[in-house]
Amino acid sequence: MRNRLKQIQDNKIFEWTVVTVIILSALLIGAKTYHLPQYVVSFLYYADWAVTIFFLIEISIRFMAADDKKAFFKSGWNIFDTLIVVVSLIPIEDSEMALVGRLVRVFRVLRMVSIVPELRILINSLLKAMPQLSYIMLLMFIIFYIYGAVGSFFFNEINPVLWGDIATSMLTLFRVMTFEDWTDVMYETMTLYPLSWTFYLSFIFFTAFAFLNMVIGIVVNVLEKENSAHERQLLIDNSEEELTQLDHIQKELAEIKAMLRGK
Amino acid sequence: MRNRLKQIQDNKIFEWTVVTVIILSALLIGAKTYHLPQYVVSFLYYADWAVTIFFLIEISIRFMAADDKKAFFKSGWNIFDTLIVVVSLIPIEDSEMALVGRLVRVFRVLRMVSIVPELRILINSLLKAMPQLSYIMLLMFIIFYIYGAVGSFFFNEINPVLWGDIATSMLTLFRVMTFEDWTDVMYETMTLYPLSWTFYLSFIFFTAFAFLNMVIGIVVNVLEKENSAHERQLLIDNSEEELTQLDHIQKELAEIKAMLRGK
Amino acid sequence: MRNRLKQIQDNKIFEWTVVTVIILSALLIGAKTYHLPQYVVSFLYYADWAVTIFFLIEISIRFMAADDKKAFFKSGWNIFDTLIVVVSLIPIEDSEMALVGRLVRVFRVLRMVSIVPELRILINSLLKAMPQLSYIMLLMFIIFYIYGAVGSFFFNEINPVLWGDIATSMLTLFRVMTFEDWTDVMYETMTLYPLSWTFYLSFIFFTAFAFLNMVIGIVVNVLEKENSAHERQLLIDNSEEELTQLDHIQKELAEIKAMLRGK
Amino acid sequence: MRNRLKQIQDNKIFEWTVVTVIILSALLIGAKTYHLPQYVVSFLYYADWAVTIFFLIEISIRFMAADDKKAFFKSGWNIFDTLIVVVSLIPIEDSEMALVGRLVRVFRVLRMVSIVPELRILINSLLKAMPQLSYIMLLMFIIFYIYGAVGSFFFNEINPVLWGDIATSMLTLFRVMTFEDWTDVMYETMTLYPLSWTFYLSFIFFTAFAFLNMVIGIVVNVLEKENSAHERQLLIDNSEEELTQLDHIQKELAEIKAMLRGK
Repeated sequence: MRNRLKQIQDNKIFEWTVVTVIILSALLIGAKTYHLPQYVVSFLYYADWAVTIFFLIEISIRFMAADDKKAFFKSGWNIFDTLIVVVSLIPIEDSEMALVGRLVRVFRVLRMVSIVPELRILINSLLKAMPQLSYIMLLMFIIFYIYGAVGSFFFNEINPVLWGDIATSMLTLFRVMTFEDWTDVMYETMTLYPLSWTFYLSFIFFTAFAFLNMVIGIVVNVLEKENSAHERQLLIDNSEEELTQLDHIQKELAEIKAMLRGK
Repeated sequence: MRNRLKQIQDNKIFEWTVVTVIILSALLIGAKTYHLPQYVVSFLYYADWAVTIFFLIEISIRFMAADDKKAFFKSGWNIFDTLIVVVSLIPIEDSEMALVGRLVRVFRVLRMVSIVPELRILINSLLKAMPQLSYIMLLMFIIFYIYGAVGSFFFNEINPVLWGDIATSMLTLFRVMTFEDWTDVMYETMTLYPLSWTFYLSFIFFTAFAFLNMVIGIVVNVLEKENSAHERQLLIDNSEEELTQLDHIQKELAEIKAMLRGK
Repeated sequence: MRNRLKQIQDNKIFEWTVVTVIILSALLIGAKTYHLPQYVVSFLYYADWAVTIFFLIEISIRFMAADDKKAFFKSGWNIFDTLIVVVSLIPIEDSEMALVGRLVRVFRVLRMVSIVPELRILINSLLKAMPQLSYIMLLMFIIFYIYGAVGSFFFNEINPVLWGDIATSMLTLFRVMTFEDWTDVMYETMTLYPLSWTFYLSFIFFTAFAFLNMVIGIVVNVLEKENSAHERQLLIDNSEEELTQLDHIQKELAEIKAMLRGK
Repeated sequence: MRNRLKQIQDNKIFEWTVVTVIILSALLIGAKTYHLPQYVVSFLYYADWAVTIFFLIEISIRFMAADDKKAFFKSGWNIFDTLIVVVSLIPIEDSEMALVGRLVRVFRVLRMVSIVPELRILINSLLKAMPQLSYIMLLMFIIFYIYGAVGSFFFNEINPVLWGDIATSMLTLFRVMTFEDWTDVMYETMTLYPLSWTFYLSFIFFTAFAFLNMVIGIVVNVLEKENSAHERQLLIDNSEEELTQLDHIQKELAEIKAMLRGK
């Protein structure tokens, strides 16, 4: 029984069917955002249930085919898939839960990532890169926090919509960092504080520099992995050892010659 | 006969004439976008026909000079050149086909790429890089699709021009990604959903991260080609083998010395 | 006594308490930017004094625990910490110094950097990168100065708000560099000088090129450190020497064989 | 005589005086962009002449100190310096030539580059990088030209200010490339051609890709110089040769042992 389910799971046709149904479910979600005649809406309703039931069957097959039931739920991707399918069973008509049901249907598109191995590798590498960037992100947050506090103290009176409190100020600073109409923000505060351009320019320099460091950090990190300092050290050590051995060999040869001559 | 055509084809003067005529045809296209007196317009009309006929003769020479007629049409650049020339023969006055005729005349500028080898190499390298980027582009499309669907569900009522359906939403999100007046889009939705800034900021972070990964992927890929892990492994293997051989040689020398002493 | 203080200083609990108090002091600063009821404001007032006193005690412990009192003040981070704490003692009510007191409280967040070693390393590496970038920054300043002077001479009459004097012009040029509504600036001057687009485009090209050089300079510099030309030269020299030694060994072996044969 | 001039030229004090005067001449230019009282204006006038005369003397010293007068004018920097100084002699009051005189005074700031060796190296490296980028720039120009022609054909009627002729279209496309209010341009044409977003998005993708290639090209080129494929090949060849030599040595040793045994 379990072997037959495994055969189904590893079947190429089964895999492609799952991918097709995921694409179909994505199209259903897209279609719902358009104004459609009533009969299409009711068709979409039934198609949506068909997709939900298909996903339920698929996850059941994969669960039953698994040798170790505990290990199955240790994989983050399996938990994600199961959660998506279970929450999909909540009827969408229920006005309370309708929003959650809708969002879950959107997130079903993410099952694409859990099915296609290449995408899974990409996401995993993104997640792996996160912790090493955490300190630069902390530094960036500190820069934002300090400038946000200073901006809120000084410019609060000028434009409370942009500088009302520290959270609003930090959002405004994010806007400045993306260069989105940042001169409008600056010219406004320069009417009262003519030197406030130093505030914006220093902020842009600091964040640009921190961002640059982040990018370079990732590039160097990626290059390091495949061009490791360890390998290079190994090569240098080996070549040093070879040279000392060659010296030794030459001395030995000299001795042999002396012995031959001496005879 | 074929040899004479080949001589013409490989002639430096012929090559430069072709480049000159392509530049001329580009200038003709540019000139047509200006308001010109009638006699210049009619001059442009005849010049255009002259260019078309020149291209027809040129492609004929290259076709007749080719040894293998089938191989001639296996090169994508030759097909492109022939297509451009053939479609150019459609009279531009024909109101139905006028648009196609006009566009083909514009695309004649692209013949520059098919003639200058350096440009051809550039384009080829761009096309080669495409497939390896396909998974990151798929991931980016999934991010756009999910955010587009969510944006359409929530913000549809607020501004149907920006969030009317999933296609419009994705175009709006592309605008947000380029930071083009993205705060206007955000402030509008924040009036109804004060927390909707999380939607935009998370989207910007995800796309920026995916884009960064794409850039780094290309850089690393380019560097890899010329600094291959294979080469480094070869060097390490060689140096290891050298060391074992040197050990062996030293043992042998010790044996020889023992033999000489023993005698 | 000093040993007990050192024990306190190196205590993990003490370290974490300091980090917690710094975060608390950051939250106090953030809270003050909101409109709060009177009793919260007075609570913040006392909390602020508590933080100041805690910092005073902490810096005193670290100062008294130091073996060499002079060396203590040679570290930039210690001077920074002491300064922040001392200026914090100025009463915030004093209307004259209130601003300074407020700013110093904001800069207390920066103590996070002086406490967390990973952030300190980041900042140090930023500071180290500064001098090597100085020449590119000087070049950029010269570009800005020249374009600022030219812009001020020509466009002063058109819009004195943007091109009134050289300082204003340079700020406008910085705006152009960030692409912030730069076409509005350009279209305005193109009404009088139709060719002034050359001014903006050449400026964008020069600054983009200088910026690109800066980024590449940093990347190359970082990569150089860990993939040094010196190491590679060493490897090449070693391998050359090995080859000459091997040649020598072969000659010696040939001689030995001749000697053995000759006997 | 020439030796004394050379001594002056190489004197550290002389060098610093020249740099100081260049900075002074830059400040003069900056000062002129402000509204100043009459006596400062006349002071600036005399200061300007003093600078001009100083530069004349300085260039004369450098010319007379040169061993080879012809070689002196073969250096681009010397020609540039001489030109700047000679044109500075044109009286600024002359209304016809006033503009040229003014501009030349601005360009005197560029003498900073010709004096400071580090800046000269930077500029030279920029100029050297130019030719290798020429093909990517040509490709970019072709992309701009084609999109400019197509844009002009289709959108001319919609907004002649942006798409009037091919030159205007190319400027508009440059604006689109910098993401400067590009959606305004797009939304306008989308009212008549709803599919015209494909025009903008494909243009953005092509130019972004070409730009990316340019950046990567420079990075790789810089890295290549110091991590050359030639060096790596040399190392591999050396290690291969060492291995064959070691094989040879082992065979010889085996022969020697056989000879010793045989005796």
